[in-house]
Order: sequence, then structure tokens, then C-alpha cells
Amino acid sequence: MKPNRKVYVVGGDITTFIGKNHPDFIWKRHPDFGTKENPTLEELTTKAILGACEKTGVKPEQIQRGYIGNFAGELFSNQGHMGAMAVRAHESLRGTPFIRVEGACASGALAVVGAIESLQAGLDIVMATGSEVQTTVSAREGAGYLARASHWETEREIDDFTFPAMFARRAKHYKEAYGATDADIAHVTVKAYSNGNKNPLAHMRTVEMTLENASTPGDRNPQFLKNEDLREHLKVSDCSQVSDGAAALILATEEGLKKIGKTPADCIEVTSYGVATSPLGDVDDFTFMGNTHKAATEAYADGELSAQDIQICEVHDCFAIAEVLMTEALGFAERGKGTDLVKSGATAIDGSIPVNTGGGLIAFGHPVGATGVKQTLEIFRQMKGQCGDYQVPNKPQIGLSANMGGDDRTSVVITYKNLG
Amino acid sequence: MKPNRKVYVVGGDITTFIGKNHPDFIWKRHPDFGTKENPTLEELTTKAILGACEKTGVKPEQIQRGYIGNFAGELFSNQGHMGAMAVRAHESLRGTPFIRVEGACASGALAVVGAIESLQAGLDIVMATGSEVQTTVSAREGAGYLARASHWETEREIDDFTFPAMFARRAKHYKEAYGATDADIAHVTVKAYSNGNKNPLAHMRTVEMTLENASTPGDRNPQFLKNEDLREHLKVSDCSQVSDGAAALILATEEGLKKIGKTPADCIEVTSYGVATSPLGDVDDFTFMGNTHKAATEAYADGELSAQDIQICEVHDCFAIAEVLMTEALGFAERGKGTDLVKSGATAIDGSIPVNTGGGLIAFGHPVGATGVKQTLEIFRQMKGQCGDYQVPNKPQIGLSANMGGDDRTSVVITYKNLG
Repeated sequence: MKPNRKVYVVGGDITTFIGKNHPDFIWKRHPDFGTKENPTLEELTTKAILGACEKTGVKPEQIQRGYIGNFAGELFSNQGHMGAMAVRAHESLRGTPFIRVEGACASGALAVVGAIESLQAGLDIVMATGSEVQTTVSAREGAGYLARASHWETEREIDDFTFPAMFARRAKHYKEAYGATDADIAHVTVKAYSNGNKNPLAHMRTVEMTLENASTPGDRNPQFLKNEDLREHLKVSDCSQVSDGAAALILATEEGLKKIGKTPADCIEVTSYGVATSPLGDVDDFTFMGNTHKAATEAYADGELSAQDIQICEVHDCFAIAEVLMTEALGFAERGKGTDLVKSGATAIDGSIPVNTGGGLIAFGHPVGATGVKQTLEIFRQMKGQCGDYQVPNKPQIGLSANMGGDDRTSVVITYKNLG
Repeated sequence: MKPNRKVYVVGGDITTFIGKNHPDFIWKRHPDFGTKENPTLEELTTKAILGACEKTGVKPEQIQRGYIGNFAGELFSNQGHMGAMAVRAHESLRGTPFIRVEGACASGALAVVGAIESLQAGLDIVMATGSEVQTTVSAREGAGYLARASHWETEREIDDFTFPAMFARRAKHYKEAYGATDADIAHVTVKAYSNGNKNPLAHMRTVEMTLENASTPGDRNPQFLKNEDLREHLKVSDCSQVSDGAAALILATEEGLKKIGKTPADCIEVTSYGVATSPLGDVDDFTFMGNTHKAATEAYADGELSAQDIQICEVHDCFAIAEVLMTEALGFAERGKGTDLVKSGATAIDGSIPVNTGGGLIAFGHPVGATGVKQTLEIFRQMKGQCGDYQVPNKPQIGLSANMGGDDRTSVVITYKNLG
């Protein structure tokens, strides 16, 4: 799809992503344990919405529509109907249409797509927000909640940790097909932590990761699956984080920019987008992300772009193998060459195609519904030179985000152009 | 909102709505108990999608986008990520973008709005579907699931049956403000069952309801709330049904109609729509549905219509008092006069403004996510003369649907014009 009416990303806000191993996360060994609590889904959502208004100068009453991406609030926080929760953020949002969209871990990007299409329908200033809280239950119980993104009836029983097992399965097939090693794949993890250590909002900003640690299973990096066929193909260090967090951004048309006193040069433009959905429980090739490839093919064609044009990229590294497969599905590497790409340094902050410069889902963190919104904001921030210690050397001009739900079942690929 | 590109409802399909008291519903006293099971969320969704294709002649491969409205599949059926569940319905849907939207009981109409706006963004043939299964747990446990549509933190404890209590509160305030009686409100219930008894798809098609039964609490019609302030203001007969069911429809642009060999005369047109969202836990007037009124005001203005123009109407009668308040919020009756309206017969099938001719949520049933989609299809079916025993005398030319989530927190009002 290509927006008929031009769509501008005006900016927004991201909360700190927190969870286990983040210094601000309250747990039994935290000094504030028993006196303070971690922020709730509503508190995080409110913080992101008000932060986005403050950072963009958009007044809440100027927002004509909102979308909120969230995967499983009714399970983790006993809260559904999150559009009507979101408008609690500010008195001036009373009555403003606010719609929750869900596509598992791609919920955030679906919120962005909802906003883009509302602008096509005639609105001028729309908010896309995403949020998730996952630390209210144990990791094992949470894994059961997240398994609602798989085909429960046929896939839940793969392992107590359903999704880690599904991506261990991808790693297994990939290694068998191409002769890649765990150490090859671990380069994704090392890059993620290295980037996240430079990012003050990152869940893992204080946790260091060496290639040896990321490559070696052991007591501090366990292979935690019960499934015996898959256990050896996944370690804790391969996984993204169980994070709490939220992000919110403002999208506007040219008319909208006038109302809020902005110019296109303050913004980045959404040049194209592709969405694809494939059936749950029916992956036809574990060594390739065919659904993401479909969404990317559409986004490239409609944006008159190719992989070679992309100068900054956010991809969905829910597991290290997922980043490898994403870079192949998006055309940055040939099939089987994704580990070579990351090992070459090309996807590093100073590389030719920087990928997940803020740490990605592995080190920035992965509050599910927030992730796709955060991706768009990360592209914006890099293009506008706002990324501080992890800023890429030259402000990139063309960017891409790829957000994915389930095992490559819902994919949203969006391309962007810097106008500043 | 008014669609810039014209939007046509091409038709669709509704499954039978079933649950307790429906002859096909499998429970311990059903002859097939132990050998057959009730259809699952996925089976119902598939049935509606394939049915909509069959009834409209649209091939699955012609569908460019889908939306699915569902409120709580991750709780009732352990299944989220329902877009990727929906595309399991047919091999040709593989890769077709399919997005789940959620706004509690207004989820279905939000799916219709998503479809309308995708057509504005450039697509030509889009599906809106909705489905819900709620009979997998006890009514009490299900009431806890449905309470995720309230502000859980502050409203859950009103009663084990949170939403029934919230609408008992509205009934209490309404009766106190206007002197209405339980018997006055019960006319809504009697009309609903009378209509539902004529509708082969209705959950309560075989259950009869007299005014005396609907007005009188007792062992067979208990006041089931624990909350002592509210108990006397709600009986079982005031409530909509805990139903399983699904509905799906096709919307298209003029270009889309050409591709599927239809003309505008085969269709009805979406003339305008309004969406409004108000903060959870913050109702400012229990005797008025201010949020629905806001959505309706927008839909009337953008459609250049007034309440007097509406010839067929579907409203969200989750409880009998809700239909009374809806008819007032939509301008069919003055405030405090909604019970007079139903008592006058004006909202009956042969009345001047027929409301919920198929039985509404009270007797047709209320599979939450399906309801908003079903409402649009009911307007279509009445306009096309397809309603059999509950067909209104003249094919109506102008219609309206009002779908609502939570306690008047998300409202979607859509207006339609018959082109045939």
C-alpha cells in the first residue's frame, strides 16, 4: 500500500522498558520491594500518550483518533477494552475514538497501520500507541499467555514455553540447512546487548554480553526447553525480554501538520507499507519467513524501493534466529547468509545497514504491543539524530521497520523517508 | 465520518447463535451430550467466512483485507491472534492481511469501521467478520471474563456479575429519574422474544416470554445480583444471552463491485459513521448514553440525516434498559420517554421505527464480537427483503446500527441507504 494522502510521523515517546535485570524493576531483592510497585498497563499507556503529546507539542484535544496495540492485557492485567482505558489518560481525550488492535507481537505496527488508514479516510491527526505489561506473573505462566498467539489447539503442547520452542525449531532447521552454528547466531545477541548498553531506555542497558557467553549454554545461560528435540537449539541469551513498557506516536497529514505548527521537514514520511497474514499452525518452510517476505515485497514495490536503498532498519528479533531470518526475508542477505551479514558488522550501528540500533527486542526489550510503535519511533529518532550514544553516523534518509506476530504469521513492513 | 469513496455492503452470512436454551446447544441434558461438542471459535469463524463468500459470490482470493472483531477469545478459548486464525478458513486466504480489533461488545462494529477505512485507503473488497464463544465456562466465570471490559481495578468488585450490575445501576437511576417501572422496561424484553421467535437463527427462537414473566421476579426469573443496592433492578429476563456465534460480511467500492459482478442495486450503501470512546469507570450520567449520543450526532450530521429519517434500526440491547437508553440517545424518543416508545409499538416489526427486528441481543443472542457485524447484516437483510417471518412490511430505505462496548464507553453508529 502507498498512502494517497501523504502521511507524516511527527514524533512521539517511549517509556523505559523494564523487567527482570533492569535496575528500576521492583522485585524481591530490590530495595523498594514492598513499598513501591512496578507501573501498571494503564500507567505506562498514560505516560506514553502524555509524553507523545509533550514531545510533539500536539494537544490531546487535537487528536482525532487513537489506536492502541496490545496483545494480552486481559490475561496479564485483567484489562481488555483498552481503547476506553487509553482515553483515561487526559480529560480532553473524552469521546475521542480509540481502538484496540491485536495481531500478537505485531499489534503495535497494526496500530500504526490503523492510524495511516484513518488519515486516508479523512482525518488529519491520529495517535498510534502500544503497551504491554508481562511481569505480573511468572515467566512460565506468561509463556502460556503468549501461547495464545500460536494455534493453541495444535501448538500449545510443543513446550511449556511454546514460542521459544517454535523458534528453536527454526534455529534447528536453519542450522541443518546452512551449516550455521550457535556461535554464528549469537552474533545477533552480542550486537543487541552492545547497542542496548548505549540506550538509556533499554531493558538490558546494564547487562553485558560477550560472544562466549552468548554462544555457550550453562547454568547462567540455560537451555530451558523441555522438548528434547528442540532443547539444544535455544538458550536464554537467544531470547528477547519479558518487558513492560509503552510507546506512542503522532501521525498527521499535511493539513494536520499545519494545525500543529509543524512542517514536513520536522517529520519523516511513511512511503509505503505491506501487511500479510498467514494461517496459524501452518508454516511451510522453517528456514524462511515467507509471510514477512510477502509484506516486504509489497512495501518495496509500492514504495519503489529495494533492500539496497534501506539505510536504517528495525526488525523483529524476538529470538536471535528471528533477526537472521528477518534480514534474509527483507533482502539484506541471501538465504543462508544472514549470519554472515551480522558477523560482517554490516548491521552494526556504524555498518552499511544498521539493524536494531537501540538493542532490538533482545536488549531494548519486548513489551509486546509496544514493540511495533517503538520501531517506527526508533526510525524517526535515528533520522532526526536523536539517538545519542547509539546514533548512526549520518542521519539516514530511507528506513524500514518489520514487526511480526506469532511464528511469522502476521507481518507489517513499513518504509520511511527522512524529510529533514 | 462520511466515506469519500463510496462503500457498499454486498451481503454476508450469520451462523445460528446458540447457547443455553437453544435446542442445538450441547449440554448435559442434550441427547448428543458426550458424543458431540459445540462448535469452537475457529469453526464458527470459518463457517461465517465461507458462508459470506458463498452468499455474495465473492471468491476468497478476491478478498484483499479482513477484520475480525472479538472481545475475549484468549480467555474463553485460549486463542488470541485471531486474524491469523481467521485465514485458516480457506487456502486462498493465505497471506491476506487479517486484523483483529477489540472494543469489548463493540468489537464487531469496529471491524466494519476498519473495513470501511481500508476501502478509503485504496482497497476495493474487504471482509469484516466477528465471532465469539462464551459457553466454555460457567456464567459466573464468564462474567469475570466480560468484566475485563470495565475498569477492572475500580469496577470489578461491584458484583460477581459486573456488567449486569452496571446496567442494574442504570435501570435504578432511570426509574428514579423518570418514574418508569420494571413492567415498562419489560416491554423491550417481550418485543425481543416475540421477534426472536420468528427468527430461525435466534438463540431464543423456541423460548416464549410474556409481559407478566418479563415483569415478575421469581424462581424462574431470579434477581441474581449479590449487590444489595442493585439486586432488585435486574432479573434474568432483562439480560442478553451468553451466546456462541459468528457473522461475516463483504464491503466493496464501486471498482470492487465490478470485480465481483455486482451492481449498487444489489447492495446497501454506508452513508456515514461515527465512533466515540469515553473513559472506563467514568460515566457522568447513568440515565443517558452520552457516548452513543456523540457517535450518533456525528453519524447523523455527516450523513445529512436525522432520527426521523431512520426506517430500520439495530441497537445494542445488552440489557432491556440499554435499548430504552439507546432509543433516547439516538433521538427516537425524548429523554425519559424510551419506555413509552416501546410500549406504543413504534419499535415493533410493523411500527414506525422497527428496532431489533430479529430479536436483538436479548433474543437473537449476543456472541460479543459478532454482534456489530450481525447488526449491519440485519439492516442489509431487512432492506433486501430477506428476513422471512420478521420482515418489515416495506423494504426500508434508510437504516442505522448502534453497537456499544462496556457501559457506553465505545460506541459505533453507522447509517445506511438501500440502493435496490
